[in-house]
Amino acid sequence: MSNTEIVSRTSQYVVGVDIGGTTTTIGLVDQDGHILQTEQLATNSYQHAETYIQDLSNVIHRVIDANVDRTAIRGIGIGAPNANYFTGKIHKASNLPWLNGIPLSVATRKLTDIPVVLNNDANAATIGEMIYGAAREMKDFILITLGTGVGSGIVSNGELVYGKEALAGELGHVIVRPGGRPCACGRRGCLEAYVSASAVAMSAREYLQSSRYKEKSLLSLQQTSQLTAKDVYEAAMKGDELGNRVFEEAGTILGEALANFVAYSNPEAIILFGGLTKAGELLFAPTRKAMQDNLLHIYEDGVQLLCSSLPENEAAILGAAAMGWQAQ
Amino acid sequence: MSNTEIVSRTSQYVVGVDIGGTTTTIGLVDQDGHILQTEQLATNSYQHAETYIQDLSNVIHRVIDANVDRTAIRGIGIGAPNANYFTGKIHKASNLPWLNGIPLSVATRKLTDIPVVLNNDANAATIGEMIYGAAREMKDFILITLGTGVGSGIVSNGELVYGKEALAGELGHVIVRPGGRPCACGRRGCLEAYVSASAVAMSAREYLQSSRYKEKSLLSLQQTSQLTAKDVYEAAMKGDELGNRVFEEAGTILGEALANFVAYSNPEAIILFGGLTKAGELLFAPTRKAMQDNLLHIYEDGVQLLCSSLPENEAAILGAAAMGWQAQ
Repeated sequence: MSNTEIVSRTSQYVVGVDIGGTTTTIGLVDQDGHILQTEQLATNSYQHAETYIQDLSNVIHRVIDANVDRTAIRGIGIGAPNANYFTGKIHKASNLPWLNGIPLSVATRKLTDIPVVLNNDANAATIGEMIYGAAREMKDFILITLGTGVGSGIVSNGELVYGKEALAGELGHVIVRPGGRPCACGRRGCLEAYVSASAVAMSAREYLQSSRYKEKSLLSLQQTSQLTAKDVYEAAMKGDELGNRVFEEAGTILGEALANFVAYSNPEAIILFGGLTKAGELLFAPTRKAMQDNLLHIYEDGVQLLCSSLPENEAAILGAAAMGWQAQ
Repeated sequence: MSNTEIVSRTSQYVVGVDIGGTTTTIGLVDQDGHILQTEQLATNSYQHAETYIQDLSNVIHRVIDANVDRTAIRGIGIGAPNANYFTGKIHKASNLPWLNGIPLSVATRKLTDIPVVLNNDANAATIGEMIYGAAREMKDFILITLGTGVGSGIVSNGELVYGKEALAGELGHVIVRPGGRPCACGRRGCLEAYVSASAVAMSAREYLQSSRYKEKSLLSLQQTSQLTAKDVYEAAMKGDELGNRVFEEAGTILGEALANFVAYSNPEAIILFGGLTKAGELLFAPTRKAMQDNLLHIYEDGVQLLCSSLPENEAAILGAAAMGWQAQ
């Protein structure tokens, strides 16, 4: 590498913007994934897109100016729920009604004079993992986000699979049990209805209603309607049979689904991301086993099952920032 | 378009080679998909790769020389069962043991002095549909081949999805009924076990064993072990209840699976290809209905369900030839 390349490499930065219903986080990030500074906006204090985008642009400029020269900025990546890469807009996000359909990407570019990429959170996480995380050097992988819901991003030959309307990668809504559990999407039997954090809590609640576990589980001491995936995890770690069974079943359904996903895009790895991955081997062990047991024999070299390597509290901002490198 | 461009456009050709266990077909094809000439080799008369590849190269040269100048040839595309795009070899093809593991692509290039692309039949069909068929102008679609088995090719952003080892797109082996019917792959419940030509015949045989249909179906007049998908089709077209039920069920399972495939890659269209598509609306109607009924609501504009537009007897050679344009 020549000196010029080193200078050019070390002098470039991106801005990541993670829009949540409550808070918007803005971060300045370098090429190695170090976050130089973050600032926050209270998303829920806004009711109009115009003032929000104006304030967002002001914060972006402030963060940049406090650290580096504006010419060193390569792009801004914005991650938001229901954001569409092709339209540059957020569509039908129930907790951001005043942003729905607003040309967020174009407006932010206009006010900041910096190239902007907008994408949904799962795609942002996927690009974050590819640039800064567990998928560095990989050209073919699938990321599955396991949070309240289940999302995903698919990378094929180094490129994110977008599809005709940038709506590809809805693997949380692949139907894994036809006619099964009701899903938030209105259909039945989706993967999300079995392996999200809310699904894990629901499975525990269902078991607690059966006589077998009613009084024997540590979880029966808690108010059933308030149970969370974290409670189930903690009980399982203390050896609770119900808690272990819930994770065993969620992992098995996830692993079966992942084996099917491999037949789709022959990935080098599947990366699990998000809150539920804190369950660690409690979730990973049954998932790995079910994936291996159900894999078509031609994938005999197997597929790595990995956990996101991005620090939990930085993952969203690194994902958003990573897209900034692709902004044009 | 300038005159030079017209001359250059009309003066280019590709060679398609379709390798089957019995016959190898070699065809010279122009940019509009017209086949100028075909020749055949009896694949099953060979036992050694060296003589086969030598004869194949001789036929390729003969077909070219009889029609156009060698400099007008852009490339050779070879389609074969179990062929791998990355390795340029055929792997584990049971009916071509003497070709397994041979560097077919490199050897053919060496003998012909023309760039060669090798790919499996389903991928060849997919590229054929994109260059010459129903997927012209499409950048995102999925092709499903419904023959003795079920194969597929996935195109995302104008590029075929290959995956890490060029083993992507095995959608016939997505498990749609966990624990279900045994599949030729050794597992259970694969899509191929329900919607291939052989699966349709098996479904009919299974129903004929039940008292409900034993004597009432037109198919009970035939020898059960000899039943084919064509027999089931013909009975169904005569109003036979069993025949209709078999296609209804196969289409329903296929449509459910296709709805899941849409959640992967958000395609503009899904194209059905191969022998079983001759069943027409008998298969397409239940497939379309089940796909629509099971589609996630964000795909509200729907997905086109199309039939291959390549003539049946030319599809394999056009698919192979189409890859020739991508040879380098």
